[in-house]
Amino acid sequence: MKLTLYTDYSLRVLLYLASAPSTDKLVQIKDIASAYNISKNHLMKVIFHLGKLGYIETIRGRNGGLKLAVSPSSIQIGKIVRQTEEDFHMVECFQDHNSCILTPVCKLKGILYQATQAFLSVLDQFTLEDLLSNKDQVASLLFNNLDSSP
Amino acid sequence: MKLTLYTDYSLRVLLYLASAPSTDKLVQIKDIASAYNISKNHLMKVIFHLGKLGYIETIRGRNGGLKLAVSPSSIQIGKIVRQTEEDFHMVECFQDHNSCILTPVCKLKGILYQATQAFLSVLDQFTLEDLLSNKDQVASLLFNNLDSSP
Repeated sequence: MKLTLYTDYSLRVLLYLASAPSTDKLVQIKDIASAYNISKNHLMKVIFHLGKLGYIETIRGRNGGLKLAVSPSSIQIGKIVRQTEEDFHMVECFQDHNSCILTPVCKLKGILYQATQAFLSVLDQFTLEDLLSNKDQVASLLFNNLDSSP
Repeated sequence: MKLTLYTDYSLRVLLYLASAPSTDKLVQIKDIASAYNISKNHLMKVIFHLGKLGYIETIRGRNGGLKLAVSPSSIQIGKIVRQTEEDFHMVECFQDHNSCILTPVCKLKGILYQATQAFLSVLDQFTLEDLLSNKDQVASLLFNNLDSSP
């Protein structure tokens, strides 16, 4: 069982933006890509989506870049995961069209649904701000690395 | 987020065996494959593993076949899912060797671990017997289908 790389990257982008040292200086996609050593192309899609969801703002132009559009305390981790995961179809019968003969009567779907809600309920208890109670340590890793990159 | 097909098939095999009408008559792999419309080859691997885990017994020979090795009330769904999922590496940093620069300080791993435990805790509350409180309905779908197949 795992989350998609898409969700993983979405959370990493938000962590990056929320721990950026100053809100005056905008963040560049290439710097996020470099800090995490992941492709800029992958990030473009993630960032576009996070923008559409209202989490980040993109300022265009020569001095443009990215910043969080809302405060970290208002970004709920459970909500992001719900928005970035493709689905929570734990087994085949969660899909409308599926071939398992037991679908009409099987009790497995119900308990897997209940388990998934429990998973998400834990994440609902945390905001991006909670994840950054050690923001200085996070920033030190992300931005020192950036400064020392060639 | 989803479980592997391997876990899905493992649970389906156990549901099939536990709802088979009589414990005297052994179950054939080809009949399980036919009822669920999945390949026999896929099932062979699943069944071999469930046998090694002690859930099912294979009797060889002319009148051979499969049966549950333990009672459905002693088969915990949470335990099976733990045993059949490859891992619960929710995001990259759950792996020992990973490239995310934040790994040493990131709090995301902790809350995803907590959420995964909550998921499994729900499944721990149920046994295979609980999933078959409507065993007659399940058996009717599985074995009527089998009888009417060409």
